[in-house]
Amino acid sequence: MAATTVPNLKLNNGREMPQVGFGLWKVPTATAADTVYNAIKTGYRLFDGAFDYGNEKECGQGVKRAIDEGLVKREELFIVSKLWNTFHEADKVEPIVRQQLEWWGLEYFDLFHIHFPVSLAYVDPAVSYPSGWHYTDGTVKTVAAPIHTTWAALEKCVDAGLIRTIGVSNFQGSLILDLLRSARIKPAVLQIEHHPYLVQPDLLNLAESENIAVTAYSSFGPQSFVELDFERTKGLTSLFDHEIVTKIAKDNNKTPAQVLLRWATQRGIAVIPKSNSQHRLQENLDVTGWDLKEEEVKAISGLDRGLRFNNPLDYLKTLHIFA
Amino acid sequence: MAATTVPNLKLNNGREMPQVGFGLWKVPTATAADTVYNAIKTGYRLFDGAFDYGNEKECGQGVKRAIDEGLVKREELFIVSKLWNTFHEADKVEPIVRQQLEWWGLEYFDLFHIHFPVSLAYVDPAVSYPSGWHYTDGTVKTVAAPIHTTWAALEKCVDAGLIRTIGVSNFQGSLILDLLRSARIKPAVLQIEHHPYLVQPDLLNLAESENIAVTAYSSFGPQSFVELDFERTKGLTSLFDHEIVTKIAKDNNKTPAQVLLRWATQRGIAVIPKSNSQHRLQENLDVTGWDLKEEEVKAISGLDRGLRFNNPLDYLKTLHIFA
Repeated sequence: MAATTVPNLKLNNGREMPQVGFGLWKVPTATAADTVYNAIKTGYRLFDGAFDYGNEKECGQGVKRAIDEGLVKREELFIVSKLWNTFHEADKVEPIVRQQLEWWGLEYFDLFHIHFPVSLAYVDPAVSYPSGWHYTDGTVKTVAAPIHTTWAALEKCVDAGLIRTIGVSNFQGSLILDLLRSARIKPAVLQIEHHPYLVQPDLLNLAESENIAVTAYSSFGPQSFVELDFERTKGLTSLFDHEIVTKIAKDNNKTPAQVLLRWATQRGIAVIPKSNSQHRLQENLDVTGWDLKEEEVKAISGLDRGLRFNNPLDYLKTLHIFA
Repeated sequence: MAATTVPNLKLNNGREMPQVGFGLWKVPTATAADTVYNAIKTGYRLFDGAFDYGNEKECGQGVKRAIDEGLVKREELFIVSKLWNTFHEADKVEPIVRQQLEWWGLEYFDLFHIHFPVSLAYVDPAVSYPSGWHYTDGTVKTVAAPIHTTWAALEKCVDAGLIRTIGVSNFQGSLILDLLRSARIKPAVLQIEHHPYLVQPDLLNLAESENIAVTAYSSFGPQSFVELDFERTKGLTSLFDHEIVTKIAKDNNKTPAQVLLRWATQRGIAVIPKSNSQHRLQENLDVTGWDLKEEEVKAISGLDRGLRFNNPLDYLKTLHIFA
């Protein structure tokens, strides 16, 4: 398969972001370096990481190897990471950004998101890494760090040259609008769960009208959550097997996965699939150079059920950020 | 019909709020004084007003007449009003609260809500009243007044004795959680659209877990919006005619309206119906002293379609507060 050229999205701060990237959630530390190195070799330039994924050091090793071998230059890569909930207090932000940069072996992140609109008590990474949703005593321990104060601390990281672009993730509309009221630097990217079972047209419309780019995560819907044994995935038709998706895939001579990704990219949305297979790694890059028919896009959008898989309320019985 | 005793809900600040009240939205100025006076005579004690309803002066006249005639004492009433979007800037809050109190002829409000999480440019009530969603030039003109600054201004009104309890209205979960991070005085009441076509169980669950009382508006669903010719109400079965509701009404020897209100109050939610008919006015008060069966409550909740009628995005094509 020939290398595919991935187009860039122009962000509201003038910078450019590849529309297709590689998502690092659930990439095991044991293989992360090789996975990232190999993905770069395959043509991936954007890597979507996070403190919470627990593999930033290993991902950074993969990046370093690729750069050392001359496969790619730092400025050709677009490295994304995220602020975990336990670092929302203003004085915790810059230190953890610097720590995450050190793990990656980088001098700056291209994009850094607030991972969730959730403020949890600080946990020292030296004590627990990645610390997840629970405090060291096993409880979900919130702290009173409002989003606007966390955002102001991230703005300072931009000023300091540690981050080039800042964004949010898992934010509802009213919270984005409220952040825009106090932000000195506008969020440039919104990362959300987005697939045919959870389309969120109003939220996409908000992002478009505020010139905020959207990155879709979990583009394959329940797929990522089946292996986590999530209740909501039980009895649900996999999007890979859904007759509307398989029919469109056949008609376009593409795989269901490619159709699901193209459904997003054709509407201007960025995607960050993950795969452990070299074959699918290549396939997932080939999701911009061809078009679905307008009625095919609509048929896929018509599968919307408002079905969210990544909701803390489901797995923690608290933190009602999507209510 | 004998006078019905309306129970109180205990709020998180220790105060009590009647669980059934009278909603003043769309009560015409020409009849508002008589309507309020008559509702007090009928047994209503809570009145749910707002700057935006444009009838506070007339409603106040009805209250004054009832007090002057000895029907009721001020302290037996629970008067609710709301901060309109054009007064979200901190310096605009106390002056308009004082103005609204003057219209009502009151020294304090029992409860004052932020009406919407929307900050619009100031419009002098002397220039346009009620000014609605559009600036004097016809545009929807937002201003950068974050919710936490508006809330802090309302807290000062509590300190000054102008308001006893403060609440929010039309807020999503993530925005409530963020407000809780900065609030010195916790919101005590959340007023939301709530009816069998829009149940919002997660939002109710959030309110319960944060000890925030919930007031339902538009308890009859599409009913209030049919006369406004809202697109979403077209072709929809009225909840008054829905076979599940009419069957339960018949089985309980109540009206569909009473069943819809009891469905809410039985789950601890406050309601604020409005009626122009004396008969229904009395009926709507009789929605606490009897019980639906648990399976009847569930059957009504099963009508949920996530169907929201009061969404600025629908009628303004902007302000994505429910996205």
